[in-house]
Amino acid sequence: MSRCLLSLAAALGAAGPAAAAPKNVVLLVADDLGLQLGCYGDPVAKTPNLDALAKSGTRFTHAFASVASCSASRGTILTGLPTHACGQYGHAHAEHNFHSFRTVKGLPALLAPAGYRSGVVAKLHVQPREVYPFDVEVQDNGRDPVRVAAEVKKFVADSGDKPFFLLVGFTDPHRAAKGFANDAKYPPEVPAVTFDPKTVPVPYHLPDQPEVREELAEFYQSLARLDDGVGRVLKVLDEAKKADDTLVVFLSDNGIPFPGAKTTLYDAGVRLPLIVRKPGQKAGVVSAAMASWTDVVPTVLDWCGVKPEAVGKGKKAVPLPGRSVLPVLEAEKADGWDVVYGSHQFHEVTMYYPMRMVRTRGYKYVLNLAHPLEFPHASDLWGSPTWQGVLKRGDKLMGSREVKAYLHRPKEELYDLAADPNELKNLAGDPAHAEALDGLRAKLAAWRERTNDPWLIKDKHE
Amino acid sequence: MSRCLLSLAAALGAAGPAAAAPKNVVLLVADDLGLQLGCYGDPVAKTPNLDALAKSGTRFTHAFASVASCSASRGTILTGLPTHACGQYGHAHAEHNFHSFRTVKGLPALLAPAGYRSGVVAKLHVQPREVYPFDVEVQDNGRDPVRVAAEVKKFVADSGDKPFFLLVGFTDPHRAAKGFANDAKYPPEVPAVTFDPKTVPVPYHLPDQPEVREELAEFYQSLARLDDGVGRVLKVLDEAKKADDTLVVFLSDNGIPFPGAKTTLYDAGVRLPLIVRKPGQKAGVVSAAMASWTDVVPTVLDWCGVKPEAVGKGKKAVPLPGRSVLPVLEAEKADGWDVVYGSHQFHEVTMYYPMRMVRTRGYKYVLNLAHPLEFPHASDLWGSPTWQGVLKRGDKLMGSREVKAYLHRPKEELYDLAADPNELKNLAGDPAHAEALDGLRAKLAAWRERTNDPWLIKDKHE
Repeated sequence: MSRCLLSLAAALGAAGPAAAAPKNVVLLVADDLGLQLGCYGDPVAKTPNLDALAKSGTRFTHAFASVASCSASRGTILTGLPTHACGQYGHAHAEHNFHSFRTVKGLPALLAPAGYRSGVVAKLHVQPREVYPFDVEVQDNGRDPVRVAAEVKKFVADSGDKPFFLLVGFTDPHRAAKGFANDAKYPPEVPAVTFDPKTVPVPYHLPDQPEVREELAEFYQSLARLDDGVGRVLKVLDEAKKADDTLVVFLSDNGIPFPGAKTTLYDAGVRLPLIVRKPGQKAGVVSAAMASWTDVVPTVLDWCGVKPEAVGKGKKAVPLPGRSVLPVLEAEKADGWDVVYGSHQFHEVTMYYPMRMVRTRGYKYVLNLAHPLEFPHASDLWGSPTWQGVLKRGDKLMGSREVKAYLHRPKEELYDLAADPNELKNLAGDPAHAEALDGLRAKLAAWRERTNDPWLIKDKHE
Repeated sequence: MSRCLLSLAAALGAAGPAAAAPKNVVLLVADDLGLQLGCYGDPVAKTPNLDALAKSGTRFTHAFASVASCSASRGTILTGLPTHACGQYGHAHAEHNFHSFRTVKGLPALLAPAGYRSGVVAKLHVQPREVYPFDVEVQDNGRDPVRVAAEVKKFVADSGDKPFFLLVGFTDPHRAAKGFANDAKYPPEVPAVTFDPKTVPVPYHLPDQPEVREELAEFYQSLARLDDGVGRVLKVLDEAKKADDTLVVFLSDNGIPFPGAKTTLYDAGVRLPLIVRKPGQKAGVVSAAMASWTDVVPTVLDWCGVKPEAVGKGKKAVPLPGRSVLPVLEAEKADGWDVVYGSHQFHEVTMYYPMRMVRTRGYKYVLNLAHPLEFPHASDLWGSPTWQGVLKRGDKLMGSREVKAYLHRPKEELYDLAADPNELKNLAGDPAHAEALDGLRAKLAAWRERTNDPWLIKDKHE
């Protein structure tokens, strides 16, 4: 049954097999992707499948991760809680070994009582299993669109008439051990989409240098492969006649894998693509609602008809701080969606740098709890030709930002986003913005209290 | 059979049931205890049972924890690996939630293939269960000597003819929510042993103030209760006729719960009691061998006849860095036992302060990897009358040490222990000690390489 016919049937109040059809969820997660999509206005990206998805659903222009680090962000996406409240403080793998709290429930656990079958194809990157008890875990190559789609097809078919929740964790456009894995051999159905380093846009936070352009060209190629994978997964849904019963959510865990974006709470790190397609919705909506990755769980639960749970008990109970975006999916303006929060602890375990953030439409306020430390580099960013070039040349500037300011941050940062969208001029000490600063401090403190922030240590200076 | 008769039988080469008797282990762990024992020369402590244990076995005068934090130290005690190699970087409970690596094996896992039954009574404080798969876990009140002894009796009886490994995790003399739990009601068999605040010795790192003396008197009372418990546990072994088959090890996880000791790598934090009693050994030995808590696992395995395993595979394999103390149990001087190492990451998760240490007989060298940060306080020490008094008075000195120097540390600390046993005068910049410093730097770097230290980040400044 096509989507139009289904909508028609729904409009006519027709009760039939379709009305009782299971309400499924497919959550597509890109790895290290900012707003570099055609539908977000990128001048070179080749992302036809994602652009088409945006055209058939709602594209959020002001959507924000709560943290710009892979495991931590996925912890937030899957639990609805900022990293300090879900416990996924940093990477789950190897010597980092961070675990979400066993008192917390991830989406598979939240949905299981409602009869949902849950699966993850490719990257998961959170633990422990008790918190994320997926029925099916397929640890396949998240860069191979054909294999990913084949696994999705199998999962959907095996689900039969059961409602399902499927997480597809693509590995693109994350860096590989070397470059972006563009030299790996993929099936002939997935031709390489290449880019001319001369024509790629260089974001404000990177220097316009040959090796940076080379890396960006590689990044766009890797992104095109992600887009191909998204297209194949959506095709599987169509062919399985599940598109009309399935909420599709596409987002990224954090910004691009370059210094100045990933692992920071600057917009380059946390302002990310969010595309939601709810069956039967008005197509091609562009929403300015400020949505947060803490809203993903409430949105999914809303679609599935499952009531959100508070985490913890008694005085220590933390209600899910987010809310469903479904009620505002068709609105281009959404009153009351004007603030998001962020919380960062680690990336790798050696990278302690707790930060808290509140962002409104006008301001960004960041509290750097370990500001005496140098801002730490993720290993892959440290080793990148981009950063090594900055080091080798002894650059004072990295794009528009001073290297010194990037590495050594004050306790508080305040940016006037209208005047300074690139967050370069810290106004925390500027009397002209003192009132705004006070308001943001209070907002952030209240949020930290509400979400039971362990770094709020009573009776201690920070 | 009495111990004397058993020794005689062994001396005569008599093979009988005794020869095939299982070789058991009882590991007694005190919580937050330094060298405040009668047998270590403390002028007021009332520790008759521990003193008697020392008289029947070997007392080590230079034994060292590898880290002065509860979970982390217990991770080292039970895996034989420094915290950076076993993964128990900090506390296991609540929002701290640190887990040892699943690739590592704790003593229960190492001994199980040899047929050992393992148990823990009272405090364990490490996770996950896969790494520490005790057959029996009794989460009882570790301050109640009568209940602890009753649980030990049950465990020993239930073990029947199987060899056993039993960890007894006392909670004394750790701080309680308020004070040292001396006002709790314990059975009449355990009378309170009280101390006069006027007569307690005040260690060099604490101010001689009334509230400090009060707290120390409470500490000694709590310690007397620990000693009572140790006596009862040893009596259970005697009564079960297991003393002749059982290696007894007594140690502490870290130094006393006062600023300047616990959570530091100063001797007050890591130089701790170690008493070992091997059936049939020469009694009353006092050993100056520098033993480390990384030696506990090799010692236990040696006694049990189990071969140590390397952790990890291939190039990443980390051999257990310690060695059995059994061969030197009867020596008062032990050549080649002249260096120990330390590694600290966290205590609470908010307390990031990675440090590395090497200590010889002559020197202590500490590398403070996060030295731009203020040295963090454990919550219980922060809230103590002792520290609050220092704050309220605005003291410049805490005992013999400057408060400023305690809170703000340089990258490197070097102490000449003969001239400065209290580690007050940092010689890291003193040309007269430059050669010693170079040697210690090299020793520490080599140890970090050998133990696969994640904080050794190649190509990065520290």
